[in-house]
Amino acid sequence: MDPVCLVMGAGAGIGGTVGRRFAREGYHAVLCRRANRTGLDTLVENIRQEGGRATGFILNAVEANSIEERVEYVENRIGPIEIVVFNLGAQTGYHTLAQTTLKNFELGWRLATFSLFRTARAICPRMQQRGGGTVLVTSATAAMRGNAGQHAHAPAMAARRVLCQSLNAEFAAHGVHIAHILVDGLVDAPDTTGKILGEQKYEALRQSKGQDGLIKPSAVAETYVQVAQQHRSAWTFELDLRAHSDKPWWND
Amino acid sequence: MDPVCLVMGAGAGIGGTVGRRFAREGYHAVLCRRANRTGLDTLVENIRQEGGRATGFILNAVEANSIEERVEYVENRIGPIEIVVFNLGAQTGYHTLAQTTLKNFELGWRLATFSLFRTARAICPRMQQRGGGTVLVTSATAAMRGNAGQHAHAPAMAARRVLCQSLNAEFAAHGVHIAHILVDGLVDAPDTTGKILGEQKYEALRQSKGQDGLIKPSAVAETYVQVAQQHRSAWTFELDLRAHSDKPWWND
Amino acid sequence: MDPVCLVMGAGAGIGGTVGRRFAREGYHAVLCRRANRTGLDTLVENIRQEGGRATGFILNAVEANSIEERVEYVENRIGPIEIVVFNLGAQTGYHTLAQTTLKNFELGWRLATFSLFRTARAICPRMQQRGGGTVLVTSATAAMRGNAGQHAHAPAMAARRVLCQSLNAEFAAHGVHIAHILVDGLVDAPDTTGKILGEQKYEALRQSKGQDGLIKPSAVAETYVQVAQQHRSAWTFELDLRAHSDKPWWND
Amino acid sequence: MDPVCLVMGAGAGIGGTVGRRFAREGYHAVLCRRANRTGLDTLVENIRQEGGRATGFILNAVEANSIEERVEYVENRIGPIEIVVFNLGAQTGYHTLAQTTLKNFELGWRLATFSLFRTARAICPRMQQRGGGTVLVTSATAAMRGNAGQHAHAPAMAARRVLCQSLNAEFAAHGVHIAHILVDGLVDAPDTTGKILGEQKYEALRQSKGQDGLIKPSAVAETYVQVAQQHRSAWTFELDLRAHSDKPWWND
Repeated sequence: MDPVCLVMGAGAGIGGTVGRRFAREGYHAVLCRRANRTGLDTLVENIRQEGGRATGFILNAVEANSIEERVEYVENRIGPIEIVVFNLGAQTGYHTLAQTTLKNFELGWRLATFSLFRTARAICPRMQQRGGGTVLVTSATAAMRGNAGQHAHAPAMAARRVLCQSLNAEFAAHGVHIAHILVDGLVDAPDTTGKILGEQKYEALRQSKGQDGLIKPSAVAETYVQVAQQHRSAWTFELDLRAHSDKPWWND
Repeated sequence: MDPVCLVMGAGAGIGGTVGRRFAREGYHAVLCRRANRTGLDTLVENIRQEGGRATGFILNAVEANSIEERVEYVENRIGPIEIVVFNLGAQTGYHTLAQTTLKNFELGWRLATFSLFRTARAICPRMQQRGGGTVLVTSATAAMRGNAGQHAHAPAMAARRVLCQSLNAEFAAHGVHIAHILVDGLVDAPDTTGKILGEQKYEALRQSKGQDGLIKPSAVAETYVQVAQQHRSAWTFELDLRAHSDKPWWND
Repeated sequence: MDPVCLVMGAGAGIGGTVGRRFAREGYHAVLCRRANRTGLDTLVENIRQEGGRATGFILNAVEANSIEERVEYVENRIGPIEIVVFNLGAQTGYHTLAQTTLKNFELGWRLATFSLFRTARAICPRMQQRGGGTVLVTSATAAMRGNAGQHAHAPAMAARRVLCQSLNAEFAAHGVHIAHILVDGLVDAPDTTGKILGEQKYEALRQSKGQDGLIKPSAVAETYVQVAQQHRSAWTFELDLRAHSDKPWWND
Repeated sequence: MDPVCLVMGAGAGIGGTVGRRFAREGYHAVLCRRANRTGLDTLVENIRQEGGRATGFILNAVEANSIEERVEYVENRIGPIEIVVFNLGAQTGYHTLAQTTLKNFELGWRLATFSLFRTARAICPRMQQRGGGTVLVTSATAAMRGNAGQHAHAPAMAARRVLCQSLNAEFAAHGVHIAHILVDGLVDAPDTTGKILGEQKYEALRQSKGQDGLIKPSAVAETYVQVAQQHRSAWTFELDLRAHSDKPWWND
C-alpha cells in the first residue's frame, strides 16, 4: 500500500502538474478528472516513465456517491490518502443575471463547493484517525469578492474558501493541514484558460502578458509541495499566487 | 397598486419588524414565511391596525418556482416591488463535519444562497427597467469567516455576501441599491434565537447579556429604512450591526 | 452649556456639511480647520442664520497640544463633546516611492493616524465617564488596501481604520460608539477633490461622472446623523459610502 | 562581493534563524539588531562555523539615517542586497488608551511602519535597477484587526501591511518580490515572547501549548526561503503561519 496523493480535477494545468510533482515525492498519484480519457492516460504514462506511481480515473464529481465510492476504493485498494489536491474549477465565463440559469448556478455550487464538502467528509475523519493529512484547495480570485458576470462562480468559490476555514477550525488541531491557495490570475494551461478563451485569444493573451506573465503550473506545483511539507508548528492556511507582472485582485 | 416592500422570512424577529416599519413608510408589506400561519396573520393584523397595508403568504422558498410565482403574483395583483428585505435564515446550530449530512449542507445553501439568487433574478431586472429599487439582505457573522461546527452555515452565508457583491456590480449603476447588512450578534427574537436555544437558555442569555445586550429588531428596522432612503450619490453596500456590549467578529 | 459636536477638518465638503447638519439636531457645532478663516467664518455664519449654534477655530492638528488644548477649552467653555466628527484628510496625490519624502510620509501619519489617536485620547475617557458619546471617523478607500503612488496615504489610513477597531474594543461596552465610515469615491467638494484636481479637471470630472456620480456631502451628512442616533443594541462600526454609478474598491 | 541577505531585527527568534538559513543558501547574512552585541556576535560566529558568511551590526532603526547609511555601507563594502528580511517588532504588551502615551504610539509607528518605509526607500530602487530582489516582511495578527490594549501596535502593523501592498503595486512588475508574512501566534523565542512574558510565564506557556504549539523559528525560516525562491510567474504576496493547535485570528 502506497501513501496516496488524490487529485480531484487532474487536467493538463495545475491539477495534473501538481499530481506529477507529488509522484516525484514518492506518493501514488491518483488522478481524477471528468473527461478526456486519452489526456488522463498520457498523464499517468508520463508519471510512470519518470519511475512514479499513478492511477487515473474518470470521475463525475457532481454524480451522487462518485467521490465517496472512489475514496473508499482508493483507501482499500491503493493506499491511505495522505494528501488531497482539490482542484475542481467552476468558471464558465461572464454572464448577466438574466443569462445565469438556475441550473448553471446550482452546477457551479455542486462543482466548487459541494464537491469539496463531500471530499472532505469522506477523507478528513480518516486523516484525523491516522493523526495527520493535508488538504490543498485550489481557489480563485472570485473567492475574495463578487463582480459583474460572476453571479454563479463568485458565490460558489467564496463558499469554498469559508468551508476551508470551517474545516481548518475542526481538523487542524488533530493534525490535518487545510490550505486555501488563491490562484489570482490566469494560468498558462490549455485545458483551462485555453478552453475558456479559445486557441486564438489564448495565444494573443500569452503574447500580451509577456514572459512569465501567466501563472506556470510547474511553479504552482513547487508551492503546493512546500505547503504540504511545512512543519506543523508553522502551517499556512492561506496564500495567494500571481504573476509578478499582474495586479493583485485588490488593485485590479 | 401600492409600492410594495417584499419580506422573505417574515418571522417575529427582524423580518416582521422591518416589514411593519416599512408599512409605516407607506409601503404595502408583503410578508412571506415558511410556516406559522397564526403568527403571520397576527403580524398582518398589527400592521393594519396601525393603518398600514399588509398581506401575508406562507411560502416554502426551497420549493421550485415558489419565489418566482409569488413575485409574479405580487407584481400583478398588489404592486411593483420597490424594496426587498431578504431575511431567510439558515442557522441550524453547531455540528461536526461527520454530523453535517449532505442533505443539511444542501438545504443550508438552498435557503441562504440559492433563494437569494432566485429572488434577485425574479426582481432585479424589473427594478432595472423601472430605474430603481432596493434589495436589503440580512446576513450573519458566518458570512465573514468559517468556524467549527458551521460547515453548512458559514459557506452558505459567505456565498450570500459575495452574491450581493456581484449583484451590486451589475445593478447599482442602473439604480438598484443592494445592501448586505451584517447582523453580528444574537437578536432579541423568540422566533430565531429563542428557537435555537430553547426558552430556558434564551431567558438565561437575556439576563447574562444585560440591558441592550441583544440586538433589538426595532433598532435594526430603523437602520434598514435609513439605508433604503439613502441618496444614490452616497449608497452603503455593507454595514454591520451589533450590541454595544458585544465583541465584533474580528475580536471574538 | 450646550451638547457639542466637534468637527476636526471642517472644510466646505463633508466636514462642514456634517457639522451644519448636527447643528440642526441641536448640537453646538465646534468647527476646526487648519486654514481659511474666511471660509470658516462663512460656515459659522450660515449655521447661525439657520438658528443653530456654532463656533469656529483655526487649528493645526499636527502641532503639539493643539488638539488637547482645544478639547480642554471646548469642554470648559462651550459644553461636553458628545459627538466627534474626525474628518482630517491626508491625500496628497500620487507619488512614486522615490518621490515620497520621509517628511511627507511622516506628515501623512500625523494627519491621518496620530491626530485621531490624540483626539480619542483627549475625549474618549471623558465620554466613558459620562456614560456615552459618539466618534464618527471619515475614512477612504486607501484604508482598505495599498496601491501604487499611495505609499504615504494608504498606510496612514489603514492605521486609522485599525485604530478605530482598537478604540471600539475598549470603549464600546462603556457606551462610546465608534464608527469607521469608508468614503469610497470622489466627493463633490471644491475644498478637497477640487483642490487635488484643479478647477478645470474637477469640472471635467463632474461632467464625466454624470448626475449623482460624485458623493454629495449633504447625503453623507444624513448617514452620519443616522449612525449617531442608532440605538446601542444595534450599532454600526463600519459602513461604506459611494455613488451608485461608481465601482466599489474591490471591483475597481 | 557576495549577494547579501539583510536582516533588520536579527534577534534569537525569527530574524536570526532566517538570516542563518539564508546564509546556508550562499547569501552573506548582514544581521542588524538594536542591542545585545554578545548575542549578535554569537549568531555571526555560529553562521561562520557552518561555513557561511555573516556580519553583524548594532543598529538603532529609529535613529535618523541609521538605516540609509547602513544600506549604503553594505551595498558598497559587502555586496548587493538581494534579499531583505524586515523583522522589527513593535509589541509592548497591552495598555489602555490612557496608558498609551503619545511617545509610545509614535515609537510603535517608527519601528513598525516608518522603518520599513525607510528600508524600502533605500533598497527597492536599487533592486529595480538590478532587475530583481526580494523583500520579506514579518508581520503579526495585529496587522489584520485592532483589539483592546493594542492602540499603538495594531495601527502600526496594519500600516506595515498596507505599505507592503503599495510597494508591491509599484515594484512587483519590475521584478521585486514583496511578501507580507503574517505570523499569527506566539513564537518559541526567548528574545521576543520570552521577554514579553518573563521567563516563568514563558515556560508555563510552553507547557500549556504542548508539542509544536508555539511557532518554531526554524520552521518559519523554511517558508521564508521557499517564498524567496518562488518563480516570478507564481509569487506569493501574503501568507499566514500558525501552530496547528492554535486558532487563527478570525476564530480567536
